[in-house]
Amino acid sequence: MEQVKCLRMSTQPTLELIFDVPRIEEKLLAKSARMHNLSVRLTNVRKQPLIFERPGVDVSLVRCISMYNAAHSAAVREAASIRAINNSSSIICSGNKILTVAKLKASGLPVPRTAVGLAPESAEKALENVGLPAVDKPPIGSWGRLVALIKDEQTFKTLLEHREMMPTGILRAHLIQEYIDLPNRDVRTLVIGEEVLGAIFRYRGDGEWRTNVARGGLPVTAYLNEELRELSIKTAKAVGGEIVSVDIFETSDGSYLVNEVNGVPEFKGLMQATGIDVPEKILKYSIEVAKR
Amino acid sequence: MEQVKCLRMSTQPTLELIFDVPRIEEKLLAKSARMHNLSVRLTNVRKQPLIFERPGVDVSLVRCISMYNAAHSAAVREAASIRAINNSSSIICSGNKILTVAKLKASGLPVPRTAVGLAPESAEKALENVGLPAVDKPPIGSWGRLVALIKDEQTFKTLLEHREMMPTGILRAHLIQEYIDLPNRDVRTLVIGEEVLGAIFRYRGDGEWRTNVARGGLPVTAYLNEELRELSIKTAKAVGGEIVSVDIFETSDGSYLVNEVNGVPEFKGLMQATGIDVPEKILKYSIEVAKR
Amino acid sequence: MEQVKCLRMSTQPTLELIFDVPRIEEKLLAKSARMHNLSVRLTNVRKQPLIFERPGVDVSLVRCISMYNAAHSAAVREAASIRAINNSSSIICSGNKILTVAKLKASGLPVPRTAVGLAPESAEKALENVGLPAVDKPPIGSWGRLVALIKDEQTFKTLLEHREMMPTGILRAHLIQEYIDLPNRDVRTLVIGEEVLGAIFRYRGDGEWRTNVARGGLPVTAYLNEELRELSIKTAKAVGGEIVSVDIFETSDGSYLVNEVNGVPEFKGLMQATGIDVPEKILKYSIEVAKR
Amino acid sequence: MEQVKCLRMSTQPTLELIFDVPRIEEKLLAKSARMHNLSVRLTNVRKQPLIFERPGVDVSLVRCISMYNAAHSAAVREAASIRAINNSSSIICSGNKILTVAKLKASGLPVPRTAVGLAPESAEKALENVGLPAVDKPPIGSWGRLVALIKDEQTFKTLLEHREMMPTGILRAHLIQEYIDLPNRDVRTLVIGEEVLGAIFRYRGDGEWRTNVARGGLPVTAYLNEELRELSIKTAKAVGGEIVSVDIFETSDGSYLVNEVNGVPEFKGLMQATGIDVPEKILKYSIEVAKR
Repeated sequence: MEQVKCLRMSTQPTLELIFDVPRIEEKLLAKSARMHNLSVRLTNVRKQPLIFERPGVDVSLVRCISMYNAAHSAAVREAASIRAINNSSSIICSGNKILTVAKLKASGLPVPRTAVGLAPESAEKALENVGLPAVDKPPIGSWGRLVALIKDEQTFKTLLEHREMMPTGILRAHLIQEYIDLPNRDVRTLVIGEEVLGAIFRYRGDGEWRTNVARGGLPVTAYLNEELRELSIKTAKAVGGEIVSVDIFETSDGSYLVNEVNGVPEFKGLMQATGIDVPEKILKYSIEVAKR
Repeated sequence: MEQVKCLRMSTQPTLELIFDVPRIEEKLLAKSARMHNLSVRLTNVRKQPLIFERPGVDVSLVRCISMYNAAHSAAVREAASIRAINNSSSIICSGNKILTVAKLKASGLPVPRTAVGLAPESAEKALENVGLPAVDKPPIGSWGRLVALIKDEQTFKTLLEHREMMPTGILRAHLIQEYIDLPNRDVRTLVIGEEVLGAIFRYRGDGEWRTNVARGGLPVTAYLNEELRELSIKTAKAVGGEIVSVDIFETSDGSYLVNEVNGVPEFKGLMQATGIDVPEKILKYSIEVAKR
Repeated sequence: MEQVKCLRMSTQPTLELIFDVPRIEEKLLAKSARMHNLSVRLTNVRKQPLIFERPGVDVSLVRCISMYNAAHSAAVREAASIRAINNSSSIICSGNKILTVAKLKASGLPVPRTAVGLAPESAEKALENVGLPAVDKPPIGSWGRLVALIKDEQTFKTLLEHREMMPTGILRAHLIQEYIDLPNRDVRTLVIGEEVLGAIFRYRGDGEWRTNVARGGLPVTAYLNEELRELSIKTAKAVGGEIVSVDIFETSDGSYLVNEVNGVPEFKGLMQATGIDVPEKILKYSIEVAKR
Repeated sequence: MEQVKCLRMSTQPTLELIFDVPRIEEKLLAKSARMHNLSVRLTNVRKQPLIFERPGVDVSLVRCISMYNAAHSAAVREAASIRAINNSSSIICSGNKILTVAKLKASGLPVPRTAVGLAPESAEKALENVGLPAVDKPPIGSWGRLVALIKDEQTFKTLLEHREMMPTGILRAHLIQEYIDLPNRDVRTLVIGEEVLGAIFRYRGDGEWRTNVARGGLPVTAYLNEELRELSIKTAKAVGGEIVSVDIFETSDGSYLVNEVNGVPEFKGLMQATGIDVPEKILKYSIEVAKR
């Protein structure tokens, strides 16, 4: 990405945009910052070290694809008393599906029936507890990766074996959840501070049971009712995040269940579907936070 | 481990001992609980699933070797309003050396000069920032594993290549710290609540620059002066832990630097060197916490 | 394992037993060598380096569990003109299911309908070519590990994703074979030189579609008919092995298909079922080879 | 890559170009085939499955970057009696540095002093056998990856720990070789059949002890003397390859040592330095082979 000119005016705070691999979202944020003449510093953590000193910025917007890079960047900034958006603990929580469900349960929010197995034997018992069909997820991972629909125990045993071969312990942990038979779509909302910016349906792609846009899911504007709005705000608070997307299931009886939270949310689909200028909203919020 | 009889008396809280691979420490804790006739439940997370319901215990002592297992276990208990010792966020923080240093710096505690590199290019610049000789650590890992002493840049480049081949992103992040030329030993203290139980020196084993007991380090009782006591308590608070061990460097000018914190501390060496009955102290503390 | 006394008599060749992790088979071989007063040298490649000089032995029996250790050990001995049993190229071939099928096909031997996919897209086309139900195997691996029964395409896609996360390229290759509906068992024969020592049925364990003894399969003596004998000898020749076990399917029309070959065969099950003294046979054969 | 028109003339054999990730070399081969109006089929093994039937080609030129993909492709073609260049066993041999050294030693060719360690303990003894300074290589890997210069034992222990964390057994094996103090360059020759096409020096890049072009090494035309020519031909024969590049060290006393062999050679550097039309030579050779 091109470097953004740093116009430091007396009253304007400086925003740091921290990234590793710039996606369309990070490029849109940088472009919007340029258009609005903001004082922005771009920090590519693949190229620049993080040191524990005040970096001359007032707020850091953390946009790393790698959850670990995001958490580590936020933590180093926090050590220098810089406000990181999101903060490191909310990035860690929303980046880990077991921690997320735990925080949602602790806040009394509705989630699918869930059990955790930290090894093959306990995972088999977790599946018994939840029942078939079920969904098996590792705690970390994006775009639905390694998320498996379990219809029978034999397939589950095969998957357990595959997961045991994964080279890192965290991919050998299993979050087992009841399979929610969705009406061909789920809902995603985007929270910024106290505001819910909008909601979209993500319709499943052909031959795919997951709704991820990365898996052919189609984003379509959804009506943001009061219940969705409230659930989204409470979810963001439960994980301690300021800018998060929330994936929500509508069950057959019309109630909602929170599925996942993303602490470094992609928002291209929501922009396309709703026309909302998300980068501007994010930048405006961040600048306001810095001024407080 | 043998199952401990669960004598539930009206006034006595039930303690859960959560583990994965029982070490000598977990066996000593279970044995001590039996001797003191405590109501204890043993939960082996490799065999038993974790479900998000009240498990009929009052406090959970988290003793998993795997940091991820420890954090996930604590989080599931917290979701059911069970007090976990340590709590999930302190386990995550003390299990990650970048997050630990960030919290220590945020609390103004003394640590070696440190920089973070999240990829080879930024790691090389982090090394420039810190200077040679330096120590290169991945954020996670126990017993000094993958901790490397860097004396020249060529060796560092070779190590960068090796780390890039690691199969999980978190092992490709680098915490670079100035090498502290120790007097052949470091200090380890053990904190339980507001109390520092004791301190030991760990003398380096032959031909090894690291002091880890797992690498031949020899534990010897150390005098616990007021400065060490205060630094240990502040460190535990900084990472939010109740039962932690703290590794401390004595520098040549007599000052102290906090090196690492362990949120699921091994304590065999300290028991041997000091004669303190650590399991009893830990159990007593946990029961008191449960009664509050 | 205890070291075996090396009684070097003028006319007796010295046999080297090369191993990494000694199983019951390697212990039985060492014990049998002691009983028969053979001149044997035990080489644990985890402890002893391999150098490219004549090691003072006449023949090397390669018994490493790790296929790579076995192949590397055999190759180093061959470089010093020591006969390795099996030789390095047959160990490499029988340790890799794609290379094995290729050699069997090249020799005109019967195998299940097979296609190979070296990436997800080509693996999906390989499955189309073979049809459902099918068996999906990585080229390397023992005891049926990661061998999956594929009944539907959705499950296959989930497995493809899991395999793409494997940390080594060779585990991301797919050997897709038609599923042979067995009569609850397969046949395993053991070849030593020009002789087929015996045959066993391996009956499937409960709730398991694979017949591996490591997965609860039950070994039972089988009648070694002429067709099995001939097929086994031809299979050993096709992969270039002297001591191999051959896994064979009986199809519903009474014909045989070769499934797999093992170049460092376990033989405990065959010993138990048939009472044949396999270690003695192996040692006798190796000594004879050394005398030639 | 664009598909090449398949003009099948009565007398012209059809050549298959098998690849996975097309580099400049594969593009040049396809372009040259188009210019010379050859009948060529392009097979991308990432997209197309390999089936064990005659694919309607006369010879297969194997150009996969992944050694496993190359070996598996060649083996499947050989199963259908198609001549693969190189054949599968030479690809496997030259793709594995332990197997390569073993074959070179078996043929009496000069190589640096070498020992093999298959685990940390045996690797330490292998280093003792070779002496310091030494070079430590895993058996597989290209472009000098993980090849380490060992100057002291402490650094070696650190590297052993890193290698033990590698997720595949083959990367935990160590080929230890004496360090040859080169005159700032090594020699690379390219063999096609009975002919040595040319030779280049590869001068080390700045701050790098390895000469790999991928590491900044500079290719410069070298005089191909009779000794280099003969050594290259013998090396190709030793590993059973038809088209291979050979990396050769000149020692201070003027003698040569074979360092490595590549069975799917890159040749861009040699083309640039010498002006030889390598793709034409390779295609011509392959067509001739097909006609035999």
